Amino acid sequence: MRAITVEPGIANSVQLEERPEPTSDPSSLLIQAVALGVCGTDREIISGAYGFAPPGATRLVLGHESLGRVLKAPGDSGFAVGDLVAGIVRRPDPVPCVACAAGEWDMCHNGRYTESGIKSLDGYAAERFRLDPAYTVKIAPALGRLGVLLEPASVLAKAWDQIERIGRRSRSWRPKSVLVTGAGPVGLIAALMAVQRGFALHVMDHADSGAKPDLVHALGGTYHPLVLPTDLSVDIIVECTGAPQLVLDVISHLDGEGIACLTGLSAAGTMQPFDGGDFNRRLVLQNEVVFGSVNANRRHYEAAMTSLASADPAWLGGLITRQVPLPRWREAFEKRRGDIKVVLLFEDLPA
Amino acid sequence: MRAITVEPGIANSVQLEERPEPTSDPSSLLIQAVALGVCGTDREIISGAYGFAPPGATRLVLGHESLGRVLKAPGDSGFAVGDLVAGIVRRPDPVPCVACAAGEWDMCHNGRYTESGIKSLDGYAAERFRLDPAYTVKIAPALGRLGVLLEPASVLAKAWDQIERIGRRSRSWRPKSVLVTGAGPVGLIAALMAVQRGFALHVMDHADSGAKPDLVHALGGTYHPLVLPTDLSVDIIVECTGAPQLVLDVISHLDGEGIACLTGLSAAGTMQPFDGGDFNRRLVLQNEVVFGSVNANRRHYEAAMTSLASADPAWLGGLITRQVPLPRWREAFEKRRGDIKVVLLFEDLPA
Repeated sequence: MRAITVEPGIANSVQLEERPEPTSDPSSLLIQAVALGVCGTDREIISGAYGFAPPGATRLVLGHESLGRVLKAPGDSGFAVGDLVAGIVRRPDPVPCVACAAGEWDMCHNGRYTESGIKSLDGYAAERFRLDPAYTVKIAPALGRLGVLLEPASVLAKAWDQIERIGRRSRSWRPKSVLVTGAGPVGLIAALMAVQRGFALHVMDHADSGAKPDLVHALGGTYHPLVLPTDLSVDIIVECTGAPQLVLDVISHLDGEGIACLTGLSAAGTMQPFDGGDFNRRLVLQNEVVFGSVNANRRHYEAAMTSLASADPAWLGGLITRQVPLPRWREAFEKRRGDIKVVLLFEDLPA
Repeated sequence: MRAITVEPGIANSVQLEERPEPTSDPSSLLIQAVALGVCGTDREIISGAYGFAPPGATRLVLGHESLGRVLKAPGDSGFAVGDLVAGIVRRPDPVPCVACAAGEWDMCHNGRYTESGIKSLDGYAAERFRLDPAYTVKIAPALGRLGVLLEPASVLAKAWDQIERIGRRSRSWRPKSVLVTGAGPVGLIAALMAVQRGFALHVMDHADSGAKPDLVHALGGTYHPLVLPTDLSVDIIVECTGAPQLVLDVISHLDGEGIACLTGLSAAGTMQPFDGGDFNRRLVLQNEVVFGSVNANRRHYEAAMTSLASADPAWLGGLITRQVPLPRWREAFEKRRGDIKVVLLFEDLPA
């Protein structure tokens, strides 16, 4: 079978190669790959900046945003042949930390987790792979190929779960408005989940026309190209760009008791001029919260599934701006103007 | 009777003046002032930088850290003549915001609260004053004059309440260690409450000897003069200096899932170089929280009362480094080397 592999740490070592079929393992599910979402982490790994091969291996099978179809399932697994599924990305260490032991591997303390296609565990960019039922999530059949959005959606389901849990520190907080910065797939799914919760939505990105503003408007939100109105004040911010200056600036748009959730990854090492006194003073006087959120546990995949299943399929389809068949796999990892989510297709969905 | 008043906005307009006795009001408590704690906010008001007189008045009675004795009490008030009490500082607007309406005036959204001795409401630097029983807290008699610490302690009880509520966002967080920056009264009470919760304690301040390190050691904590060990990593930080550079630097000592609570007030307007990318990246990858906390509601005064009542009175007494009788009131507002908490005495406690 074919798989896309990379030698972690070696730039542009990515290739489509022939690999043996997955080994037989009666306790796990055998999965036929249907589609794979591509994200910035994949490009980071291809560039050699990140990634770890499994123990004893030199190459890593890429891919963590999976959609597959069950080919073989143990009788007691809860899965049946033909089910559409996605694999959970992170797995706890066999000797789990206190967070991992509680099923909250997204909050892992010691960093000794593995991640499919990223860290010490082969990913889903292979025609067939095996999944432990405990780390497999069923996709609603009606979603079909849109199920490939489950993994990025799980990260936002976690972010929203954390926002709501932190919000419960107050008995009286009644948030009404949300600002999402960045209208990539992460920002747009954050925006979808904001609207599903009944919030007034603002989204900022640098595109001044095209699919991004259209998708925001379709949600009933207000789209701000590049600049935010100085008087815009919201209860919740979901920051999805990781752009350091924007992260620092956007907090000034938080209203009293407001919560800003950071979800974007930034590079460290560049100093910006920053008014730390103002930052501290406004957080204190307004009881504001800034927090970071990464990854997702099983609860979040399930919440994300509910969220995607109740969204307009046409809107979700608008997030997928390119679909690339496996033979042209290199194109899927290119960043092109107008891309939101690019998906690599391993097979066509059955009708 | 004598009262210390100030004309807000006019530097050094503070004076001890003769004022009429409080008006008769059968629904409120008549209080004889016993002691008054002095803090930076009082000095800020005296400097003309902050403060608002009550509506229709030009002068404001100063003072918000009260300790008094009940002289007259309505029969159904729950208070009796002779009770030691403290007044709550903040009161909601008659048309309360949603937070104020829920009794969470510390989380007030619209800023239309009043504050005794600070904002549009006379304070407690008067020989006698009236208190609404709804904004009065009983002091355990055994505490005696140490009850003057209740107001600053309430601010930390709020901070700890928020830390614990935010911590509940995770089912698995088991914090063990706390770093407090600043060993003034606020920092030391934060440290006391950390030890009362069973946490390993680290405190940093610039004093390299004297009462501050001694008080930290008496709690069983580790005292760091000026510099923190680079490898110090803690679950909780309570920042009590408001020094902008320290606020930004200290966050790097937070462990995974860690929570930093900012309680100090800083001046805005100075830019420092700051690695916003690193700040964002570590918050995201480690699921860390930074939040601000101000003021306290009734629940927090009551929690603070419990905390002070179970502390070692000799240790609490060590926080009060100067006691100034009313005739020498000006000295109480001077900042002197070695000061932790300075208290103005209106009368000696009955034996």
